[in-house]
Amino acid sequence: MKQEFYEKTLATKSIFQGKVIELVVKDVELPDGNTSKREIVHHPGAVAIIALTKDKKLLVIEQFRKPLEKTIIEIPAGKLEKGEDPLECARRELEEETGFRAISINFITSFYTSPGFADELIHIYFTDEIEIGEVNPDEDEFLSVLEVSLSEAEQLIEEQKIHDAKTIYAIQYLKLKGGLT
Amino acid sequence: MKQEFYEKTLATKSIFQGKVIELVVKDVELPDGNTSKREIVHHPGAVAIIALTKDKKLLVIEQFRKPLEKTIIEIPAGKLEKGEDPLECARRELEEETGFRAISINFITSFYTSPGFADELIHIYFTDEIEIGEVNPDEDEFLSVLEVSLSEAEQLIEEQKIHDAKTIYAIQYLKLKGGLT
Repeated sequence: MKQEFYEKTLATKSIFQGKVIELVVKDVELPDGNTSKREIVHHPGAVAIIALTKDKKLLVIEQFRKPLEKTIIEIPAGKLEKGEDPLECARRELEEETGFRAISINFITSFYTSPGFADELIHIYFTDEIEIGEVNPDEDEFLSVLEVSLSEAEQLIEEQKIHDAKTIYAIQYLKLKGGLT
Repeated sequence: MKQEFYEKTLATKSIFQGKVIELVVKDVELPDGNTSKREIVHHPGAVAIIALTKDKKLLVIEQFRKPLEKTIIEIPAGKLEKGEDPLECARRELEEETGFRAISINFITSFYTSPGFADELIHIYFTDEIEIGEVNPDEDEFLSVLEVSLSEAEQLIEEQKIHDAKTIYAIQYLKLKGGLT
């Protein structure tokens, strides 16, 4: 790390500890010796799965997202449980949300979603070998599963129904990789 | 919107109103009549700029990110000020952070970064026509500007120095579009 950019923590105040996120405010010493405050959301991390059917269509989820007050279409995803291995989490979330079980699954990449205010790190997996499993969404999760072609996915981006970072990443990944119908 | 997924707000509690984000907790009525709580971060929205130099290299910023406790390399970006037009914000942030002024600039897409817990919407712009302007970072912002080739950018992803959604989006965008050295 470049030492000249480092911000030393002077004090940490926990504002809120919820089911999903924790909010803290940190007083920091800036590189020039001045101080500032950083508002930081701690998040357990997440996984998302780029899953192709036998027909080479992409499995997506339609789901109401309260922060946006709208229903959007995303690739299957979910939060890491405490101590959970991301690969196991990806297998679990794929089956719970879509009813498909991954026969094989590979790690693609990971990225921070909002490094300015949150530490959420999302791990992306890929599978094109799936079999029928068992749907079992969380008790407060209501969703439907769709299978879309590349042109349908691009139309959904146009219509802002696909409208989130991980799903737009997934479409780009498949365009670069090839293989989506 | 599919009515069967809608979650009605029963109560909203404001937990924290900061400089950047607001945290609220909403009691919601689920589609099956049960209730749940949603922890929601309100964010003013942001812009990011994919800017190519005359040599077709990508302008990136190296900056310490307190939520991650590490220095990462990102495309230029910044928060929308109240009532600010995203295009004007993109021009402003590009010049403030990199010292380059966009002669022309185009909107590419927008996406939500973390739709599960935050309403941050980021607007992505592209320019390959820039001229020397004036660097003027925020007073609590310390950064350095780099210019990277496509292979350098991919190496930085490998090393997890480029490690955030918008910048990985930008690299994919340039790979799909072509034109990066």
